[in-house]
Order: sequence, then C-alpha cells, then structure tokens
Amino acid sequence: MEFRITHRASGCRARTGEIQTPHGNFETPVFMPVGTQGSVKAVSPEDLVDAGVKVILANTYHLYLRPGYTLIGRQGGLHRFMNWSRPILTDSGGFQVYSLTSLRTLTEQGVTFQSHIDGSRHFIGPEEAIDIQEALGADIIMAFDECAPYPSEYAYVQRSVRLTTSWARRCLDRKKRGDQALFGIVQGGMYPDLRETSARELVAMGFDGYALGGLSVGEDRATRERVIRETVDFLPQEKPLYLMGVGTPEDILEAVMLGVDMFDCVMPTRNARNGTLFTTAGRMSIKNARYAEDNRPIDESCHCYTCMNFSRAYLRHLFMAREILSYRLNTIHNLAYYSRLMGDIRTAIGEERVAEYRATFYEVQKNGLGQKEVL
Amino acid sequence: MEFRITHRASGCRARTGEIQTPHGNFETPVFMPVGTQGSVKAVSPEDLVDAGVKVILANTYHLYLRPGYTLIGRQGGLHRFMNWSRPILTDSGGFQVYSLTSLRTLTEQGVTFQSHIDGSRHFIGPEEAIDIQEALGADIIMAFDECAPYPSEYAYVQRSVRLTTSWARRCLDRKKRGDQALFGIVQGGMYPDLRETSARELVAMGFDGYALGGLSVGEDRATRERVIRETVDFLPQEKPLYLMGVGTPEDILEAVMLGVDMFDCVMPTRNARNGTLFTTAGRMSIKNARYAEDNRPIDESCHCYTCMNFSRAYLRHLFMAREILSYRLNTIHNLAYYSRLMGDIRTAIGEERVAEYRATFYEVQKNGLGQKEVL
Repeated sequence: MEFRITHRASGCRARTGEIQTPHGNFETPVFMPVGTQGSVKAVSPEDLVDAGVKVILANTYHLYLRPGYTLIGRQGGLHRFMNWSRPILTDSGGFQVYSLTSLRTLTEQGVTFQSHIDGSRHFIGPEEAIDIQEALGADIIMAFDECAPYPSEYAYVQRSVRLTTSWARRCLDRKKRGDQALFGIVQGGMYPDLRETSARELVAMGFDGYALGGLSVGEDRATRERVIRETVDFLPQEKPLYLMGVGTPEDILEAVMLGVDMFDCVMPTRNARNGTLFTTAGRMSIKNARYAEDNRPIDESCHCYTCMNFSRAYLRHLFMAREILSYRLNTIHNLAYYSRLMGDIRTAIGEERVAEYRATFYEVQKNGLGQKEVL
Repeated sequence: MEFRITHRASGCRARTGEIQTPHGNFETPVFMPVGTQGSVKAVSPEDLVDAGVKVILANTYHLYLRPGYTLIGRQGGLHRFMNWSRPILTDSGGFQVYSLTSLRTLTEQGVTFQSHIDGSRHFIGPEEAIDIQEALGADIIMAFDECAPYPSEYAYVQRSVRLTTSWARRCLDRKKRGDQALFGIVQGGMYPDLRETSARELVAMGFDGYALGGLSVGEDRATRERVIRETVDFLPQEKPLYLMGVGTPEDILEAVMLGVDMFDCVMPTRNARNGTLFTTAGRMSIKNARYAEDNRPIDESCHCYTCMNFSRAYLRHLFMAREILSYRLNTIHNLAYYSRLMGDIRTAIGEERVAEYRATFYEVQKNGLGQKEVL
C-alpha cells in the first residue's frame, strides 16, 4: 500500500491523497461502507460501483463466525468470494467481540467469548486476528486492540492502552503476507495523555497507517473532536489517518478538517433500511405522509439509480409495504450521497475552499431554503 | 391488444403467438412474474428486464388497499408509478378477496370484506374492479369473478358460475377505457358441464382473451389437466388463453401442450426467497451444507447476473446469514430460469419438436445425470 498526499489545505489540517492497493487506488478523504457479513446490506457489488463506492469495510468477527475464515480462504479470499474487485479493509474483530458477545474473558493473551449466533465459545487474540485477516485477504487490515467502554476510569483505560500496545506489537510480529497494509489503532479513551502514550508507542513500531479507535462510543461531539485534534499531533502526517465508526456527514466534515483521511460507518446503510434518507438539504424520513403523492426524486440534484428512476411517492409506498426493493433503493441513494459528499469535500480541499464549503454545507441545511425547495 | 398466432404444433394444442399491447409486444407462451404490491418482490424493473421478463402481473386487491388506486391513478398509472415500461396485467382482486380477507359477505352486488392489513371494511363488485383496474392502467385487465373453494358441492359451483357470468357482463358494461384488453375468467370447479356453461356464456359476450380460474386451488394434477383439456374445447382458438396461478415448470409445460398461452405464479419469486432454486437438472435448496464450499454457479448453463457473478458457496452464505442480497440474487436466477424455460418451449413449438423437448425435460431431471453433474 502506498499513500500519497496530493494537496494540503492551508487553513486547516485537511488534505487530499491517494491510496494505492493491490486492488486499485482510491482518493482520500474516503468513506467506506460497511459490508458486515461479506455483503453491504441490501446492495450488490455492481450497485456499489454505480454509487461511486471505491473501498468497503468487512467485519472480521462476523466472517470468522459465519461462514468461517478458512472457508473464505479456500474460496480464494473475500474479494473473490463476494465478487468485489476493489479494495477492502477488514477490522480486527475486537470492537464486535466487545459489543456483541457475552461471557467475555479478557486476558493478556486475548479474548474468550460466546458467539452471538449460537453461543459457541471462541478465542481471538492478536495472532488469531492477523491469521483471520490474512485468510480473508483484505488490502488493509487492522491490529487487534482493546476498545475501552465509555466512560471508563483512568486506570482502566491506562491498562487498555498498555494491552493495545502489547497486542499491536504481536500483530506486527505475526504478520506474514506482504501484500496487506497493517494499521495500528490508537486508544486512550478521552484522556489526552493516554492518547498521546498510545499514539507514540504505536508510531514507534511503524504501521502503514493509524486509526483512532474508541471514539463514537457515546461521547459528545466536542469531546470527540478534542480527542481527534489532540491525537493527530502525535501521528505522522505522511501516513493515512482513519477514524473508525464515524459517522454523520457533519461528523465526517469536521474530522476531515482535523486531518482525518478515512471513515467507515453503518449510518448510510442502516438509516436507509430505516427509511431515513440523506439529501443536500438534510435528512428525509421517507415514511412521512407528506411524500405520499410527491412525484419528485429524493434529491433533485442526485444522479443515483434511485433518484433517476423512482419518485418519493413510490419509495414511500415500498417502505410502508415493507417491500425488499425499498431497502435496496434507499441504500443506493444514501451511498451515492456519501460518495458525492466525499467527492465534494475532496474538490473543495483541492481548490482551497474547504472553509467556504463547510459554511455552505451548514447554511443549506440550516436556513430551511433547502427544506422547502428540496424536501 | 392484438393476438397473432405464429405457429400451431401439429401433435398437440400447443401454439406460439405474439401479443401486442400499448406497452410493447411479448411472445407466447409467456410466464408473468407476480408484482403483488407494485414490485416483483426483491428485484427492480431493470433486474426484470435483464432476467428476460416481458410482462408482469400486479394484484389489484393489494394496490387497492395500499397505496390506493386513486393515488396510483394520480401518479400517472402503475407503469409510471413503479417505473415499468413493459406490459402489465392486473387480476381483478377477486382471488385475494376470497383468500386473504376475513368477515366476507358475498351478494349479487359484490363482496364486502375486511382488509388483511388493518381490518378496515371495503366493498368490491364488478364495477369497482373495473374502475380500479382502469385507474391502475394495466394493458390487460380481468373480469371480477367468484372463485369457488375446492372441493365445493355442485350446487355451490353452479351458483358461482351464474354469478361469474353476471359479473362478467357488468364488467364489460362498465369498461370505459379503449386501450385495455379485458379477459373473462372461466369458472366451474372440477365439473365439466359447469366449465362448459361458464365458457360458452363468456364466449358469447366476446372478451379479448379467456382465463381459466379456480384451478391450482388444491386439486391434483390429473384433475387440473382434465379440466384444462375439457374447457379449451369451448374457447375460441384465436384468442389468448391464460391459466391463472400456475405453476411449476412441469405444470406449465403440460398446460402449454393443452393450448395455454399465458401463466402467472409466485413460485419463482417465493421459492427464491425460501432458498429453492430452479435448474435444468431440477430444484436446488441453496441452504444444503453440500454447497458450503461449492464454487460453481447455481446452474452452469445459465447466463443470469447471479450465475455469471456468484458461487453456490457465496449464495448459501448469504441465505444462511439472511442477507437481503440473497433474496434478490435468488429471485433474479429463478426468473431467468422461467424466462429461458418459456423461450425454450416457444422454440421447440416453432421447430415442431415440443414432444421431444418434453421428453428430454423430464429425462434430464429424472435420470439423475443432471443431479450429479449440475447439482
């Protein structure tokens, strides 16, 4: 993997760049839709390409449990298994182990847990996380970390950072494949000195990129932005920076200005399935009765398959009738929205007008002009 | 609507033909996938076109209840509402009223019933069925009939035929639009003389086509084929003949040889969502563990999007993980299978080898060669 910065904004830390992987390149800042179980929910690989998606995230924990990483390995890896030829990033499985399983036992060695599917017992430590991710064959893989809950006592987070550093070292030692980039994950909760410690220790080991973990776990927005700002200072500017599990269009825009290059979140896909659609004028709940006879597209400025072919009235009907097509069409739109958002942000950075872009972004949503005209 | 017979088989009643409608032509024998609520479940209009679908059926009862036929009318009709530019046939709503609703009251005037969605009370008679279907704007619409349950006493079916004839007359009288073809529906249960009566009475009124109703309601296959055979004699050979709610590939093949031109059934779509896939060698249950690591397509002779891009192993995983994409990919394959089946049957009729086609069709499925090699 190669990361090349193509432009640095002058008024903030925002930058544009390009990441090269064995499965092609993508520009940053980038948003990665989540394909939890080897499928970005409700859409096909072709739909993703059409919606402008360049890279996706897959969940190691889910694929480890079902269908199993050895099976995917024997099928030629995840790209081939799911017929996705563009880049993939896999998380380490850590976050899902902490958030989805029961009867967890955490030791220096790793985590023993019960499957959320069938209650079976499993163990994943840093070595296993790397082995699984090597079998899956993503272009970018993540170190196995411990994500402290929020809020957590200082002593707990301190221990968590120590463990995360130790595990990161073991991940580097275990790694065998030369065609996968490995990112370290900075922990440290909301404590600036622990974030600094975590960042410094990981940077000393030399990862291909760095992620901010342990955020978007319940803290408020100001706290999250403070932690990002304080942590970025201790990370090498020439490496890609990935903010895990974030977020809303607003969250992403703010984080880009703080220097973040990569994002992932279930928001566009999950919201789509719940009938919440993103537009340039803000969010739209498609089940609202006001759309029952509205023959306009979701967003008149959007060129996605959904907006080019279907009315709000029809999309509302599909959603109310719980038709499967509803989930797909809504997801296509939301993913296209996120793709366009990231493209617009990249263009604004390149043209030295990201501050103006940000002002306009909020203005359009706030002044209700868009609400009246578009919604 | 125009119906033109292009070839009559010499050894049986099978024939090929072409139906011209305001939304384009399609060849017969034809299979119409069911788009119950204004969507063929799990697929888009584009998917239908890619799977070779030329005409679909929509359910008047469902669209009447949700989103409502006046709404669809104001949205420019069903074609425009669901973005399907090819022909549509709507049923009369009768069958669903009898099979899905509660607290039904049947009178000479029509049927009062409670919605299966919210329990609200509604009335549909022949005039209402025509008004609704004119608002929906399908290319082919159906007369409102009474479908007797199976088994039913002779006297009940006799009364049902009388009512169906009376309602058919009122449908013809009510019809205002000149761009929709209206089909009559022959009832009469399994009683040959009542089928004859029903057929003669409808033919005397002069419909654009004739349907066989009240079949596929629980009778055995031999009985169904006997009824088809006995009824066809009393219907004009120059009009299209439609067997409602049928069926399996085998059922369709047999009925084609008895002279049937049109079919509809939820089988390919519903089976797809249950993980049952049609192949040239028979049915496949994709959840079967034997497919867990099978990297072949569902059917190596199939050129649908699913077979061209995904393995049995991946499709099994999607189905086991209940991923929404599973329903779409399975549905695309089953619809493509039905399209190919009908195309193969038409070609066989045209080439005067439908009997050989039939023999081979059963042989491939029966001798297990296909089972071993393809499945």
